[in-house]
Amino acid sequence: MTNPSPLAVAVVDITDPDDPRVDDFRDLNSVDRRPDLPALPGGRVGKGLVIAEGVLVAQRMIASRFAPHAFLGVDKRLGELSRLDGGLVVSDDPAAVPFYRTTADVMADVVGFHLNRGVLGVARRPAGLDPAAIIADARTVAVLEGVNDHENIGSIFRNAAGLGVDAVLFGAGTADPLYRRSVRVSMGHVLLVPFAALPDWPAELKLLSDNGFQTISLTPDPAAVPLAQAVAAQRVAFLVGAEGPGLSETAMRASDIRARIPMSRGTDSLNVATAAAISFYERVRVTQG
Amino acid sequence: MTNPSPLAVAVVDITDPDDPRVDDFRDLNSVDRRPDLPALPGGRVGKGLVIAEGVLVAQRMIASRFAPHAFLGVDKRLGELSRLDGGLVVSDDPAAVPFYRTTADVMADVVGFHLNRGVLGVARRPAGLDPAAIIADARTVAVLEGVNDHENIGSIFRNAAGLGVDAVLFGAGTADPLYRRSVRVSMGHVLLVPFAALPDWPAELKLLSDNGFQTISLTPDPAAVPLAQAVAAQRVAFLVGAEGPGLSETAMRASDIRARIPMSRGTDSLNVATAAAISFYERVRVTQG
Repeated sequence: MTNPSPLAVAVVDITDPDDPRVDDFRDLNSVDRRPDLPALPGGRVGKGLVIAEGVLVAQRMIASRFAPHAFLGVDKRLGELSRLDGGLVVSDDPAAVPFYRTTADVMADVVGFHLNRGVLGVARRPAGLDPAAIIADARTVAVLEGVNDHENIGSIFRNAAGLGVDAVLFGAGTADPLYRRSVRVSMGHVLLVPFAALPDWPAELKLLSDNGFQTISLTPDPAAVPLAQAVAAQRVAFLVGAEGPGLSETAMRASDIRARIPMSRGTDSLNVATAAAISFYERVRVTQG
Repeated sequence: MTNPSPLAVAVVDITDPDDPRVDDFRDLNSVDRRPDLPALPGGRVGKGLVIAEGVLVAQRMIASRFAPHAFLGVDKRLGELSRLDGGLVVSDDPAAVPFYRTTADVMADVVGFHLNRGVLGVARRPAGLDPAAIIADARTVAVLEGVNDHENIGSIFRNAAGLGVDAVLFGAGTADPLYRRSVRVSMGHVLLVPFAALPDWPAELKLLSDNGFQTISLTPDPAAVPLAQAVAAQRVAFLVGAEGPGLSETAMRASDIRARIPMSRGTDSLNVATAAAISFYERVRVTQG
């Protein structure tokens, strides 16, 4: 947690599920109205909001650069968040961030399904971060190409946070990390681990080389070096590709070295988030061991 | 693959979704009729069948101890399975295993939803294996306690197969590994990696000690030894517990040593399948590196 101070909230009781004040939490699963999809010109899709589900993820949102502008939840969860470091503190200031307090049934009517986590936070998407800025002090970076499964992206952020990865860069063909499911599977770490896009892909990998990173492509290729031989440099960036196709040949050529996780014969490659976790672990082991 | 020889099938065309010959594939998602749930006295729940979905998993079922007694699929998938080593070979023998050939629409009517993998195999559950038998020649074993999420169990089998684990033992509170979703997430490896139950838990961990296994409890406890220091024994068994509670204290006490994956402060423990994969990887690295 980078910010342990609590956020002041003004409690507002909601009894009518059609109350427009809770519109940012409405119809979370409705394909054409989902608040957590990027806003596009013409308003055809989502509102470009970020949704935090549950006490733990809401707490992480409060500590993050994604400043929540409202909460919706039951009284029990408000109480839990009020007792946590870096949680909420109830304020009399009507200008404080609203906590829309309601029942589980009204909440289900608003979001469109029963949500057993009992509390939601919502934030607007801030501007994207500058890749040069987020790698400036990083020692270990993950770079994703073609990873278009929201659950895998969430898992990669969870594993990055737990295993010492300082930043995540997004190459071509990757899905939105701020989609609600990614945020949930990441346990909120997508809000805390800085990430940025590399739109000119893979040419922008040069940013990593220019900053002294050893760029390592993960591949099942038996000709690649074992992972343990590749992770000791001062600064390391792991490139991972989508399950199935893996990294593109152009991305691998733009990297410094190809490394493999030793696998049993007759098996498939590992799930991309699992392979990434093993590489993050190996980096921790070699540099801290 | 332990058995590369193909299985002979007799092709039977199905045009009526109500045809009783395809009853073993019917209503895969219907809670009270699911064929892939264990059969209980009185027939209240499932039929105790094992379902393989898709060409790859069907191929693994053919190679496994789960002998398929029927297939349901579209002609394209029959063709693909006929071209694979250890797949199917069309036979004129009417006593051969039936391949019920049909259209995607009829198949959807039978199973209750559109199934884009296009082919299903079905097998009866054979008798459970003897734990002493499956560890007899094993060097690395995984032992699960309280892992009750079918997706995590499937992932653990996939990772076990890929990372050199010879057998999986089931302690208390674990879910059915033969549930359809586990089979699918495992990519069929639950059919190939031998597993057995230890009903007298955790007392039966003695079987491992008696056979010279170093039993290692995975825990986030900072007092545990780093994983890399624990995995070099001739024979090793990794105990993993459910996300959240982790291993029970009684199970940890019954093991030889507690080991941890070094984690960043302020993060949660890893997903159980991810933690297991890292331990399997570490075992491969230390013993093969």
